[in-house]
Amino acid sequence: MKPLNIGMIGYGFMGRAHSNAFRKVNNFFPLQHQVVLKAACGRDGAKTAAFANTWGYQSVETDWKALIAREDIDVIDIAAPNNVHAEIAIAAAKAGKMILCEKPLGMNGAEALTMVKAIEKAKVANMVWYNYRRIPAVTLAKQLIDEGKLGKIFHYRAKFLQDWTINADVPQGGPGTWRLDVSVAGSGVTGDLLAHCIDTAMWLNGSIDTVTGMTETFVKERAHALTGKKQKVGIDDASAFLARFSNGSLATFESTRYARGHKAQYTLEINGENGSIAWDLHDLHRLQYFDHRDGGLTRGWRSIHVTDGDQPYMKNWWVPGLAIGYEHSFVHQVADFIAGLESGKPAAPSFRDGLATDYVTDAVLKSAKTGRWEKVKKI
Amino acid sequence: MKPLNIGMIGYGFMGRAHSNAFRKVNNFFPLQHQVVLKAACGRDGAKTAAFANTWGYQSVETDWKALIAREDIDVIDIAAPNNVHAEIAIAAAKAGKMILCEKPLGMNGAEALTMVKAIEKAKVANMVWYNYRRIPAVTLAKQLIDEGKLGKIFHYRAKFLQDWTINADVPQGGPGTWRLDVSVAGSGVTGDLLAHCIDTAMWLNGSIDTVTGMTETFVKERAHALTGKKQKVGIDDASAFLARFSNGSLATFESTRYARGHKAQYTLEINGENGSIAWDLHDLHRLQYFDHRDGGLTRGWRSIHVTDGDQPYMKNWWVPGLAIGYEHSFVHQVADFIAGLESGKPAAPSFRDGLATDYVTDAVLKSAKTGRWEKVKKI
Amino acid sequence: MKPLNIGMIGYGFMGRAHSNAFRKVNNFFPLQHQVVLKAACGRDGAKTAAFANTWGYQSVETDWKALIAREDIDVIDIAAPNNVHAEIAIAAAKAGKMILCEKPLGMNGAEALTMVKAIEKAKVANMVWYNYRRIPAVTLAKQLIDEGKLGKIFHYRAKFLQDWTINADVPQGGPGTWRLDVSVAGSGVTGDLLAHCIDTAMWLNGSIDTVTGMTETFVKERAHALTGKKQKVGIDDASAFLARFSNGSLATFESTRYARGHKAQYTLEINGENGSIAWDLHDLHRLQYFDHRDGGLTRGWRSIHVTDGDQPYMKNWWVPGLAIGYEHSFVHQVADFIAGLESGKPAAPSFRDGLATDYVTDAVLKSAKTGRWEKVKKI
Amino acid sequence: MKPLNIGMIGYGFMGRAHSNAFRKVNNFFPLQHQVVLKAACGRDGAKTAAFANTWGYQSVETDWKALIAREDIDVIDIAAPNNVHAEIAIAAAKAGKMILCEKPLGMNGAEALTMVKAIEKAKVANMVWYNYRRIPAVTLAKQLIDEGKLGKIFHYRAKFLQDWTINADVPQGGPGTWRLDVSVAGSGVTGDLLAHCIDTAMWLNGSIDTVTGMTETFVKERAHALTGKKQKVGIDDASAFLARFSNGSLATFESTRYARGHKAQYTLEINGENGSIAWDLHDLHRLQYFDHRDGGLTRGWRSIHVTDGDQPYMKNWWVPGLAIGYEHSFVHQVADFIAGLESGKPAAPSFRDGLATDYVTDAVLKSAKTGRWEKVKKI
Repeated sequence: MKPLNIGMIGYGFMGRAHSNAFRKVNNFFPLQHQVVLKAACGRDGAKTAAFANTWGYQSVETDWKALIAREDIDVIDIAAPNNVHAEIAIAAAKAGKMILCEKPLGMNGAEALTMVKAIEKAKVANMVWYNYRRIPAVTLAKQLIDEGKLGKIFHYRAKFLQDWTINADVPQGGPGTWRLDVSVAGSGVTGDLLAHCIDTAMWLNGSIDTVTGMTETFVKERAHALTGKKQKVGIDDASAFLARFSNGSLATFESTRYARGHKAQYTLEINGENGSIAWDLHDLHRLQYFDHRDGGLTRGWRSIHVTDGDQPYMKNWWVPGLAIGYEHSFVHQVADFIAGLESGKPAAPSFRDGLATDYVTDAVLKSAKTGRWEKVKKI
Repeated sequence: MKPLNIGMIGYGFMGRAHSNAFRKVNNFFPLQHQVVLKAACGRDGAKTAAFANTWGYQSVETDWKALIAREDIDVIDIAAPNNVHAEIAIAAAKAGKMILCEKPLGMNGAEALTMVKAIEKAKVANMVWYNYRRIPAVTLAKQLIDEGKLGKIFHYRAKFLQDWTINADVPQGGPGTWRLDVSVAGSGVTGDLLAHCIDTAMWLNGSIDTVTGMTETFVKERAHALTGKKQKVGIDDASAFLARFSNGSLATFESTRYARGHKAQYTLEINGENGSIAWDLHDLHRLQYFDHRDGGLTRGWRSIHVTDGDQPYMKNWWVPGLAIGYEHSFVHQVADFIAGLESGKPAAPSFRDGLATDYVTDAVLKSAKTGRWEKVKKI
Repeated sequence: MKPLNIGMIGYGFMGRAHSNAFRKVNNFFPLQHQVVLKAACGRDGAKTAAFANTWGYQSVETDWKALIAREDIDVIDIAAPNNVHAEIAIAAAKAGKMILCEKPLGMNGAEALTMVKAIEKAKVANMVWYNYRRIPAVTLAKQLIDEGKLGKIFHYRAKFLQDWTINADVPQGGPGTWRLDVSVAGSGVTGDLLAHCIDTAMWLNGSIDTVTGMTETFVKERAHALTGKKQKVGIDDASAFLARFSNGSLATFESTRYARGHKAQYTLEINGENGSIAWDLHDLHRLQYFDHRDGGLTRGWRSIHVTDGDQPYMKNWWVPGLAIGYEHSFVHQVADFIAGLESGKPAAPSFRDGLATDYVTDAVLKSAKTGRWEKVKKI
Repeated sequence: MKPLNIGMIGYGFMGRAHSNAFRKVNNFFPLQHQVVLKAACGRDGAKTAAFANTWGYQSVETDWKALIAREDIDVIDIAAPNNVHAEIAIAAAKAGKMILCEKPLGMNGAEALTMVKAIEKAKVANMVWYNYRRIPAVTLAKQLIDEGKLGKIFHYRAKFLQDWTINADVPQGGPGTWRLDVSVAGSGVTGDLLAHCIDTAMWLNGSIDTVTGMTETFVKERAHALTGKKQKVGIDDASAFLARFSNGSLATFESTRYARGHKAQYTLEINGENGSIAWDLHDLHRLQYFDHRDGGLTRGWRSIHVTDGDQPYMKNWWVPGLAIGYEHSFVHQVADFIAGLESGKPAAPSFRDGLATDYVTDAVLKSAKTGRWEKVKKI
């Protein structure tokens, strides 16, 4: 087994999710590389050390430039907030490191483009953590669509609903709440939640041509977590848009953090001439599938419990009927990334794929200002 | 159109359900007979008159013997409490009337047998109101089973759960609560709820050979609704049994009025070699169907929204997607009864079918006392 | 009991639904008026006579002007296609008749306004058949919102999905397919399905200020049912829009006849500060309700089986747990209409309410052409 | 951190599930012990070595006696087939090792009793892997019951349905199919699946007094996996029983491997005076809860998405809305076992608890032979 040395930047929610994936992948997936948790990097030395200790990282860095400079690191994993993705990624590319970057790729399309250029110039392996592609039910949806089971597509609809910022006392900025600070996050739910919906949508249904959107900020001022000072809120709390795909299908997209009763309800549905597919992150192990070619008497939505050995990724886990969860999508992504290294066929989504999503969110945010349909920039 | 003159005995819950069915059937089903609401009969003249007025009955009787004696009555419908079914039915048979009788047929199998003998001697059309056979989803289940879609059957399970008698202040006896008075009802949930489960089960899966059961009366004394006096409760509040069908399949049955959160949750499931079927009265317009012969990747329980024109009874109602409800099962039963008169192929369940169910409930109640497996008497 | 004599125009799907409601209402609702099916009116004399015979109408007319001229008619019920609503309604108003009109009120807002002016000048009782307000689960939603259970509203979303016109062989024009002929229907799914969504939405959440929409016609040519000749399709097959309500909440609306697997899936959801509500016509007897003020450990979406006696309209039907269906919403509407006559407090939705919905669909269709946000005309 | 050295016996399905739990527990739960995967033990040296390599065990043994003899082992984990549980456990107890034993504890109650005596004499920490207690939704159910939210209990029902042995070509004996060989498994679904149901039931609802049961073997002969020879099947394919709990509640239990469409559908429901609870392993992250004390208008089953930080175990995982899966129940069990060592309050279920379940399965199997109600032996 060849070692694959990871240098992890960030120790928050995503730092944990990625670390867990790195630790588990060799237990469940037969690969030629052995993942090694080489170094954890964060600005706060004590916290980084504690994180390294919990997860078994062999060393600690407090300066990401030092991490990138190390020769014993193969992969830089960027699990830090959005506003530092570009700088780190570009430097890592220059240093010839492989790069895994949290989504969204950049603060906006222009910034993301600089990252794409850097990795393409450096010819380094790269991937963006749009993990939902690898929930087995979603991967199965892709497989069924690719097999032509739906036929010509008419409609796509997706939404991502949360409710955690309704309380006006939730601050902006700071460790757990930087997603509410526009200077760190770039945008609100558009780049955070809609970006997931858009990535999956384009993977399943091709590119988006035009959009018209609206955004809203329900709570106009929030205290900053670090200073305590009230500041104008710059992010969008809610964002919705209509879209037309290149294949002629119509779409509605919506995301918000103001939908009571929904913690992380990412749902998608796609309607084609011969069938339809629907999925809900709240019941992530099920795929809903309607096949119009079933006999009329017994036609119905099938609730597919995606836990069987012949369904995507599942032969590597337990036995039929026993569900896996959210975290496993990250394990699958690491497994595919490594398998891509080994086969020479890089796993998606690449930085270029991530750029495509940033172009869509750019168009949505622009349309929300102009009140008009906006064309999506082509990658 | 030939008139079919109805004489209705009883004006309670079932009197209303049957009357509604009689009134609606000619609006929705093309038949050669026109149902005529000729007379309503009940002991309380004022209440019977009010009932007749509400439903459009042309006349009122307060003595069921007078009703039976009338020459302008074709069909006697017995919607009165269980303890008068036999006497009325036998008299009606002797008078040559067609008879529709509420379930259970008799207070027990022995009594029911006298009723069967009477109608078979008189050769009059007869039917028992086991209406759930004609919920379209249940009828569709029967159709799929008859087509062999399930293959060899391994398991049957049914339950009927309610929660309306948990409060010890609910009385026994009297108009709305005679089902708690053993002298009127014959038994508790065994004859009331399990009887429904058993009728459907034998229709779908054939006869039952042996059973072992248990019953319980949680509230031991209740006031009588009319006298106010506390009396021992003679009915079973809960009843469950294991069974073996003649086809080799195993079954569990359960009913209770002590299951919080379930108003009328009659569920059934049947598992065969090639597929399974499940249904729930709380969502009566849906049939759940699993076909093992579907492709492995897309195998799942299909939720069939039984509202399409090619599904049982539905072409007579609205358009696909628009659900009908509980009351329609009675309309279907009247439609089939009349169609049976017209075709010469009588609709089921006959009194003899009703007797078969009474024999099962007899065996369950006996087993609950003996603690042993009991054979079910054959009809 | 005072008679209320109905003159019904039309004998299609809605003619049946209304007739059923008229026939049933006195069986289930205590009213001072007795509905009398006085006359059925349609251009085809034989078909109208058959319809009258099935439903028990006492007489037949083939000219709606003759019907309106009759002194023994109290109520004109317009169940004819959209393009004749205005002419009939205006004439009926002049004749002093009460008027029940199928939705949408007019072919567009301008036409609907002439109808409103006519009935307001004539001061006749009037109502539009937006029946979904009176599905008990929807009525319960209204009640909970009015009680303030949701608090400040952030989001509204509704969709109405069907799949019956995917096949390009479905014709336009003619009895069952006039909804595909723009000259008869006025518009496609916008006036047919979205109109329902909009009526309920404004009832539950107040008026809509601005919209931006898109429409699509997937099948560009269809044969005319009567001539057989291929003609350009003028209606919209699919229609979606974003909206802002006057109360500051954001909305997405969508309807289509190209969503495989959905026969009549009208869904709505509303998210407020303290709770959320969701409903689906495919399971019309259930209301989903989330109360954020429930204890954290047991917080969850409640699936309310709306069949209890204290829930809207249900005490008039059967017993808890036993569902009613689609058709009952029409019975409730007739019951409320008559109760409104008796109490002097007219039941909604009035023609003016219907006009408000037409103004929204006008704005959606306009926006679909201009590509911009359009203001909704105020009533 | 104090090391806790694990010696694992077995490398099948359960060997993997336990190993994963040992590897993950310190990443997610703050404990004073560091789990160390010290040695893996199995009869097949090559397979054991491969297993040890995959999971990171530091050494390999092929003789469990040698493993037990090692001084550097603190905990013996028995993940080997049922017929060797007793011998290994008794030896390990004598050697003073802590013991974790897969369920069922013994081949029957008599054997299990010898194990209990051994560990109680040796006073070693012990636990049986009834993992379903620690699915967060099930743990939450226990918590709600303990808080008295259900009140007096009337009913308990559980079933565990699978469909993997319907094909008569599935062999008995051998690595993946030893559960079909009675000489290795002790019994069929009774000890395999019902044992899980019984353990949870007694944890939630107290002890069981009496049972009456039935079993069936649908496929009478199967080839042996190792010899290829057809042999009589000694296990039960299906098993169901009625029961009475000490608290006066009634129960139905059922398990089978012949229920098409169910891979691992373990469901339970409990009905009390004030509320009810239901759970389904196929949607393991949800608890269904009905509270009768909710207001009548909004009373309904709550679907609790058990992913919030204040719900059992969930603060140690991700963020609200993101589900965990089957494997996590094992992590929780290890975490609680270690926490029990640290606090001095041993985590359940102990070997004695496991004995209680074996006594119930003994009584069920006996009743299936005698046809009578059998008393359950008290521990």
